[in-house]
Amino acid sequence: MRLSAFALSTTKETPADAEIVSHQLMLRAGMIRKLGAGLYTWTPLGIRVLRKVENIVREEMDAAGALEVLMPAVQPAELWQQSGRWDAMGDLMLRMTDRAERQYCFGPTHEEVITDYAKRDISSYKQLPVNFYQIQTKFRDEIRPRFGLMRAREFIMKDAYSFHMDDADLDREYHVMRAAYARILDRIGLDYRVVAADSGAIGGAKSEEFHVLAQTGEDELAVAENGRYAANVEAALTMASETPRPAPGGELRKVDTPGVATIADLCAALDLPAETTAKAIVVMGDDDKPVLLVLRGDHSLNEIKAEGIDGIATPLQFAEESVIREHFGAGPGSLGPVNVNVRVIADYAVQNAADMAVGANYDGAHFVNFNWGRDAIEPEFADLRNVVAGDPSPDGSPLSILRGIEVGHVFQLGDKYSRALELSVLDENGKSITPQMGCYGFGVSRIVAAAIEQCFDDAGICWPTAIAPFELVIIPIKADKSAAVRKACDNLYAECRNAGIDVALDDRGLRPGPMFADAELIGIPHRVVISDRGLEAGTLEYKGRRDSDNSQIEYSLEALRQKLGR
Amino acid sequence: MRLSAFALSTTKETPADAEIVSHQLMLRAGMIRKLGAGLYTWTPLGIRVLRKVENIVREEMDAAGALEVLMPAVQPAELWQQSGRWDAMGDLMLRMTDRAERQYCFGPTHEEVITDYAKRDISSYKQLPVNFYQIQTKFRDEIRPRFGLMRAREFIMKDAYSFHMDDADLDREYHVMRAAYARILDRIGLDYRVVAADSGAIGGAKSEEFHVLAQTGEDELAVAENGRYAANVEAALTMASETPRPAPGGELRKVDTPGVATIADLCAALDLPAETTAKAIVVMGDDDKPVLLVLRGDHSLNEIKAEGIDGIATPLQFAEESVIREHFGAGPGSLGPVNVNVRVIADYAVQNAADMAVGANYDGAHFVNFNWGRDAIEPEFADLRNVVAGDPSPDGSPLSILRGIEVGHVFQLGDKYSRALELSVLDENGKSITPQMGCYGFGVSRIVAAAIEQCFDDAGICWPTAIAPFELVIIPIKADKSAAVRKACDNLYAECRNAGIDVALDDRGLRPGPMFADAELIGIPHRVVISDRGLEAGTLEYKGRRDSDNSQIEYSLEALRQKLGR
Repeated sequence: MRLSAFALSTTKETPADAEIVSHQLMLRAGMIRKLGAGLYTWTPLGIRVLRKVENIVREEMDAAGALEVLMPAVQPAELWQQSGRWDAMGDLMLRMTDRAERQYCFGPTHEEVITDYAKRDISSYKQLPVNFYQIQTKFRDEIRPRFGLMRAREFIMKDAYSFHMDDADLDREYHVMRAAYARILDRIGLDYRVVAADSGAIGGAKSEEFHVLAQTGEDELAVAENGRYAANVEAALTMASETPRPAPGGELRKVDTPGVATIADLCAALDLPAETTAKAIVVMGDDDKPVLLVLRGDHSLNEIKAEGIDGIATPLQFAEESVIREHFGAGPGSLGPVNVNVRVIADYAVQNAADMAVGANYDGAHFVNFNWGRDAIEPEFADLRNVVAGDPSPDGSPLSILRGIEVGHVFQLGDKYSRALELSVLDENGKSITPQMGCYGFGVSRIVAAAIEQCFDDAGICWPTAIAPFELVIIPIKADKSAAVRKACDNLYAECRNAGIDVALDDRGLRPGPMFADAELIGIPHRVVISDRGLEAGTLEYKGRRDSDNSQIEYSLEALRQKLGR
Repeated sequence: MRLSAFALSTTKETPADAEIVSHQLMLRAGMIRKLGAGLYTWTPLGIRVLRKVENIVREEMDAAGALEVLMPAVQPAELWQQSGRWDAMGDLMLRMTDRAERQYCFGPTHEEVITDYAKRDISSYKQLPVNFYQIQTKFRDEIRPRFGLMRAREFIMKDAYSFHMDDADLDREYHVMRAAYARILDRIGLDYRVVAADSGAIGGAKSEEFHVLAQTGEDELAVAENGRYAANVEAALTMASETPRPAPGGELRKVDTPGVATIADLCAALDLPAETTAKAIVVMGDDDKPVLLVLRGDHSLNEIKAEGIDGIATPLQFAEESVIREHFGAGPGSLGPVNVNVRVIADYAVQNAADMAVGANYDGAHFVNFNWGRDAIEPEFADLRNVVAGDPSPDGSPLSILRGIEVGHVFQLGDKYSRALELSVLDENGKSITPQMGCYGFGVSRIVAAAIEQCFDDAGICWPTAIAPFELVIIPIKADKSAAVRKACDNLYAECRNAGIDVALDDRGLRPGPMFADAELIGIPHRVVISDRGLEAGTLEYKGRRDSDNSQIEYSLEALRQKLGR
């Protein structure tokens, strides 16, 4: 591509409303332009990256035996009513009514549509297993669209849906897809982790997420040092400790703690480390009675885990202050497990602790030297908290906490949708069965932003070669004054194109500074500079995007190819 | 592709609700499946064709220097209000309101969005000309979605929009796009015509349509024998005749024509050929007064032409019977130009006619031997009618009437949108100018259906090779009983794939009949059959999709390549 004809549109200024680096750099490099809240146009520069991602995804899905289809974006309400999600999706779903007064949505996902499709076309075990995928535009009406493509409303996903005769075959295909996703991310060239996930609203049993590592990632990932366990912190398990509980060290003693509202206040007031304190949180049970959750002072409640405990209301509902006062005689900040008349569930981390500081259920007072069994009856113990760095993984290897951006999610859905939409097939004995389903999502537009979050420096984007808008840029020095430079540029450009190198020639007639700055900002992995001086010496000036210095290489396609690693 | 893993789903039955052959064959071949009214899922078979069309379109647009972008499907109402089309689009536009109560539409086209995009990114003459294109999903809420993809509501278009400093440069790019469209259709391999068109609701000056010829085409095309003129019948011009008007042959005479309501009735009653009669149609003028249009009895009114005449109401409005009776003293069916007190406009075809039969403005009566000048004052003459076969084109060459399916449209829009959305750029002298725009649409999903309308026979689809789902199918005979046949099939399949041939192997284990029938139905251009007998003789049985008979060719990739023409 000759950049003079490419409508490149870069800026030095960081746009005021872009909070994260990928959004800033995509705007500065001119990859996207905002049309409205959460709506972006991909520019000629941006779409080159998008199409490269799309092609890698398509090739790997095809290689894995999935079959490409394309479903409509506009979906009839009836199917969503049948699955029960028409209401459940709430405001996230953009709804519309056509001229015939029928209701539709702009598909946020396609479980219902693909199940309906399968219902029309699949009737026999002979047609299973099958896995359909599409690369398609979705819309989710986010409350607060932001971060550019990271949380856009209209976005591009690869979504795949598989159908199986039984769980074992679903599990087989799940691992085929998991491997395909790993190959996609390997080819794109990003550092990522596969982590166990909570299945959330989509439903189903087993699921894992693919996260591109980035310090700015929204999600926390717990990864075992030995590499055998990784989970989203939302889903990472903590274990009951096997060390025995120490004997009580002192008498339960009530201390005045006026004005203490938080664990930090308590530690300051009593000069205690947070790990010797316990905090108490009141949530509502299914039966509308309060339940007291007790966690170590420095730990945080994992709401998904709490919600998953039998008898706890779903979605998790924190008790109102009036209810708390009625049952505990004190407000939040002074609660504890002593002398209470409600269900108490304590986190594993406080199971084998002794001599804890806890709220006294009396405003402005706490107990010290609290011990289970002695000062309160033994509660139920459960996994209630988010893991922290250093926690053991299920096999004991210590966990580190990394930050990641979710770009893929593989699910074993089971029969949730096939049952709701009444998909059935005949097995070998002519008996009707409900197929098991898997679903596999990959954020095609999102990974473009995620790649930038992982790969940038002060000068701009540092694309992995596989998805760079161009592999190589040729920059001429004083082309306006040197026919030799112009000719050499044209020749090298033609040679590179013939060799299948995705090359850009910066023939915009700018000064070297702005050309270098643009090449760095838009993140072209390889750069060569052609000047009269170099031509005289028979050399090209080469610089990799991450290199700190230039190097001179022989003026030949062969030497250049070596630098490009091809 | 091994067909055993391809989810092919063909049927023999013609679906009841499919009226046209492309819709029938796409359903029977299993290329599309209906989700709702005008909403179709592309199956694995269908999408192979769609992607091939898409690739050809993308390659030719890129080669012509257009730059790919991707705009959102969901568009803010504000832009359409600014262009004045929010109301004008009426029910054709699918509208929606987001959670923040802002209005949007599912884009039926993107003139507004691209102009807004250009406004944000383009400010100088140095950035022009530029031509942006996208391949993207659109939605038009058709009153009566039908004919499968031919008039679907959700469909895929390639739309391009160019920006220019002046008309001359717009005209240059228009011809670049026109040539690119011709190359696309040449590569796809369809018989088509480029015809002058009416610019319709999109506005602007010059426009031409690309039509794939098919007997089932909705549009009539007038094409000159010498090849120098072609126009949609909507837009095809008729000329004032240069032959002098003959002298009147007889006296004006009133004849009783009881019960005569149509030209056919009149011809039957008076035993006259239709071309010696004239019919009169009353439409309303801008000033709300009736205007009498006079055409030869066997010609049909072209409403677009009538609407284009100064003083005629737009959109064209036929007079109500009460208005007609008030001004003419008779009802439709007995009207004529004698003794009327309204504006009369007559078609060129009756300008030089003599002794016509016309309505007498008296129910149940006509005049014969009507002559202009003598029996009524000379009216205005204009081009009011649709051309018919045999009419002269503007340079005199006789016109034929062909039927076509519109798949492309190139427009010179002028400044309609750039002015409405206040796009301006600075010229070389620092003066602000409003750019001229062109727009260029190509029906990516529609052309798949159009290709079938042109290319089918009793057995099914006959794809042009460039967009066939597979180029070649290998069919084994009794593979279940012959390891040699299985091995030969696998070998040839692998060889073809290595040679870059898009090959399908029918390994579904069916009897030969159903395999042959499916291959013909889905339209694979080339077929080879591998059997024990052939293997013994060292031959393959070859048949082209349009061939009436098989032929034996040497069992070699080379011999096969010759048959495939590659």
